[in-house]
Amino acid sequence: MTSKAKQARNLIEGKPALIVIDIQKSTFIDDSEVRSIDNMPGYKDRMIAARDLVDAAHDNDIPVIFIQEVHRPDLIDFGRELDGDEDVHCLEGDPRTEVAKEEMGFRPGDYVIPKRRYSAFFGTDFEILLRGLKADTLILCGGLTDVCVHYTFVDGHQSDYFCRVVEDCVGGSSIQAHEAALRAMEYLQTGAVQSRATVIQAMSAA
Amino acid sequence: MTSKAKQARNLIEGKPALIVIDIQKSTFIDDSEVRSIDNMPGYKDRMIAARDLVDAAHDNDIPVIFIQEVHRPDLIDFGRELDGDEDVHCLEGDPRTEVAKEEMGFRPGDYVIPKRRYSAFFGTDFEILLRGLKADTLILCGGLTDVCVHYTFVDGHQSDYFCRVVEDCVGGSSIQAHEAALRAMEYLQTGAVQSRATVIQAMSAA
Amino acid sequence: MTSKAKQARNLIEGKPALIVIDIQKSTFIDDSEVRSIDNMPGYKDRMIAARDLVDAAHDNDIPVIFIQEVHRPDLIDFGRELDGDEDVHCLEGDPRTEVAKEEMGFRPGDYVIPKRRYSAFFGTDFEILLRGLKADTLILCGGLTDVCVHYTFVDGHQSDYFCRVVEDCVGGSSIQAHEAALRAMEYLQTGAVQSRATVIQAMSAA
Amino acid sequence: MTSKAKQARNLIEGKPALIVIDIQKSTFIDDSEVRSIDNMPGYKDRMIAARDLVDAAHDNDIPVIFIQEVHRPDLIDFGRELDGDEDVHCLEGDPRTEVAKEEMGFRPGDYVIPKRRYSAFFGTDFEILLRGLKADTLILCGGLTDVCVHYTFVDGHQSDYFCRVVEDCVGGSSIQAHEAALRAMEYLQTGAVQSRATVIQAMSAA
Repeated sequence: MTSKAKQARNLIEGKPALIVIDIQKSTFIDDSEVRSIDNMPGYKDRMIAARDLVDAAHDNDIPVIFIQEVHRPDLIDFGRELDGDEDVHCLEGDPRTEVAKEEMGFRPGDYVIPKRRYSAFFGTDFEILLRGLKADTLILCGGLTDVCVHYTFVDGHQSDYFCRVVEDCVGGSSIQAHEAALRAMEYLQTGAVQSRATVIQAMSAA
Repeated sequence: MTSKAKQARNLIEGKPALIVIDIQKSTFIDDSEVRSIDNMPGYKDRMIAARDLVDAAHDNDIPVIFIQEVHRPDLIDFGRELDGDEDVHCLEGDPRTEVAKEEMGFRPGDYVIPKRRYSAFFGTDFEILLRGLKADTLILCGGLTDVCVHYTFVDGHQSDYFCRVVEDCVGGSSIQAHEAALRAMEYLQTGAVQSRATVIQAMSAA
Repeated sequence: MTSKAKQARNLIEGKPALIVIDIQKSTFIDDSEVRSIDNMPGYKDRMIAARDLVDAAHDNDIPVIFIQEVHRPDLIDFGRELDGDEDVHCLEGDPRTEVAKEEMGFRPGDYVIPKRRYSAFFGTDFEILLRGLKADTLILCGGLTDVCVHYTFVDGHQSDYFCRVVEDCVGGSSIQAHEAALRAMEYLQTGAVQSRATVIQAMSAA
Repeated sequence: MTSKAKQARNLIEGKPALIVIDIQKSTFIDDSEVRSIDNMPGYKDRMIAARDLVDAAHDNDIPVIFIQEVHRPDLIDFGRELDGDEDVHCLEGDPRTEVAKEEMGFRPGDYVIPKRRYSAFFGTDFEILLRGLKADTLILCGGLTDVCVHYTFVDGHQSDYFCRVVEDCVGGSSIQAHEAALRAMEYLQTGAVQSRATVIQAMSAA
C-alpha cells in the first residue's frame, strides 16, 4: 500500500555531507588475532574503499566529517559498553585510537567529531555542525555497520535527515550482522543502501 | 577476551521498570490483510503474552510505562518515517492508535508516554520519568522488535540503563528482522535477551 | 566592535511560528492571593494582550504552538522544581492546568505541546514539530518571562532559531525579574525584544 | 506557601562535582580594552578566587570538570552567537582559548569538556561524564554568571541535579546582569547561591 503521503527520493536530497565513522588507526596497525571488537572478514578492505568516497567528496566540495570513537583513559565514560561483546577500546592517547587521516586522505577543512557512544549524535556537537553546514543528506561509511553506522543512521533518520549507507564501504562485527543492519536501514528509508560507484556518480552530479 | 573492566550482571540490576512499547488497539481490532506496518506471524499472540509481564509487574510493585506511537493528524511530524517501508500510521484520534489498556490490564498509576519517533527517548519525557522513578533496569516488551524496541534499547543502553528484552513478548516486522534485532541487543548487553518465564521469576525475587 | 561575521537581522527571518507559553486557565480562574507561583502586577492583562498575537498569526497563516506546563498527579516528574520558589503546580486533571483555549482564540490546526520542565524544548516533541513546520523564527509570548519564556528562548537560540520575545505580552515572577530576563534575551540576539504592535505589523508583511 | 512536597536541602546532596566554566587563558593574557565579550569590573579576580575551589576539591577527592568554550576556526558552529552582544570568540588554535590550567591548578585526573554553546550540557559529553561519576550536586564557578553559568545551571536543574553557584567565584557581563542571574538561580533552587568560604567548608565535611 502506498498512500499519497509517500514520495520517491533522490540519492542526494538537498545538501549532502559525507560521514566517515570510526575509521581509526587500529584497523591499519593492529594485526592481533584477538581484538577488543570483532570485525567481519574483509573489514580492512572495506575501510580502504571508503577512501574513494572521501576523494570524491573533496573533488565536489562536499563536507567530510570524521567521527572518532574515543574513551577517557580512566574508563569513566564507558557506561554499559563493557556489558556486552565489546571489551575496553579506543582509549584517548592510544595511537590506535587516532583517526586514520593519512589512509583516508584527510584534508584541512575536514571535520573531526569525537564521540563516547555508538551514535555520532549522542553527546557530541555533530548536530550543531550539521546545522551549520545546512546538510540535508548524510552519506555514511565506516564501521561497524551493525553498531555505530546503524545507530547513527537511526538518529539521523529520527532527526529528519535523508540517510544513505554505502554498502561496500562499511563493515560489520560479522557478515550476518552487517547484512541485517543494511536491511534495517533500507527498511527505514527506501534506497538508503547504495554502492560506492553510484554514490560517487551522484556526488559528481550534485 | 575479558578484561577486568567487564563484570557479570543480574537480570535486574537496581530498580526495574517494565516498558510496554506500542501495544495499541490496532493489533486487536484491525484484521486487514494489508497493514500500514508489516508484522511477523504470531505477532498478536506475542502482544497478548506481554500481559503476563504487566500482571507480574503489578504484583511486585514494579512501575509500568506504556509507550504509545501517535502522530498528529495533519502528518506534520512524520519526518522521514514515510520514506521507507511504513505507511501513514498511528494517527491521533484514530481508535486503533489508543493504548490497548483493557487487553494489557492497564491500571491507574501506570504511565503513558506518547512518542512521534521510534525510540521512546526521542522527543518525549521518558527520561524525566525514569529519573523520577530512579529506574536502573528497563525490561522491554511490545513491538516492533526490530524498530521501536531495538532503538529504545539502544538509547537506554547509551544512557547507561541496564536493558532487557523479553523474546517471547516482542514481535518484529518479519521473523528474520526480529531475530537479527535480538542478536543486536544481546551484542550490546550480554544476557539482554530473556524469556517471559525467567523475567517473571526475577520480578518476584526483586 | 563589530566583525564582518555579524550581520543585521529582520524581525522575522525565514518562516515564523508563534509560541504561546504556559497561558493556562489558572490565570483566568484562580484569584487566590497566595499562588503556587508568583506573578508580577498586571500579569493577567499581559496574557490577555497575547490574544492579539494569536489572532494576527491566524490571519497571516503563521503556525501557532501552545506550550502547556503539566505534571503527573503523583508528582513523580517534578525533579528539582520544588526545591526553589515554586510550589506544586499544573497538575494533570486540574481544570486550572488546561490551556486557555477560549481566552486565546485557539483554533483547530493550532498545536499543543505539554511539557514537564521550563524549556519547551526539554523532554518534548517541540523540535520535531518545528522541523516539520520548517520554522526559522520563534516569536515568544506568555509566561513567566524569567523562567519558561527565557529558558525556551535560550534553547531556541542554542538550536539556531531566530528568537523574538514580545515584551508587552509576557509577564514575570516580579517586575525586576521580568526586566532582567528581557535584557538577557536582548544580549543573546540584538532586536529580540519587540512590542506587540511591531510584531503584528511584521506578521502582516511576512 | 510550602506544601509537604517541599523539603530543605543540604549544600551538598549526594556526590558533588566542581564545574569550572570557561576560565580560559584570555582572562589572563588579553588586556585589550575592547573585548569580544564584555566582563564586569573585578572579573579576573573572581576567576583567580575560583582557584581556591579547585584546590579544595582536589584536597577532598571531589571530581573537577573544566568546561571550555571553543569554536571551529571556519566559524561554522557559531549558530546565532554572533546575532547579539558577543563577537567572534574562543577560536580553536588561539592560545587565549586554552583552559587556564596553570592558573587554576589543573591536575591529571581532572576533566576537560569542550563546548560550542553556552550550556555545558548542549552538544557535549558532559552528561555522560556526570553519569559515570554518579554526581548529584554540581558546584558551579567561572563565567559569565549571566550566560554560560546561568544556562548550565538551568540545564542541570532541569536534569534533576542539585545546583550551586559560588557567588564570589563567578563573574558576569555586567554587575547588573551578574546579580540578576544569581537571583534567577536562587529562584530555581533555594540556597543555590553560596560563598566560597561556605562551599569549601562543605567540601571538607562531605
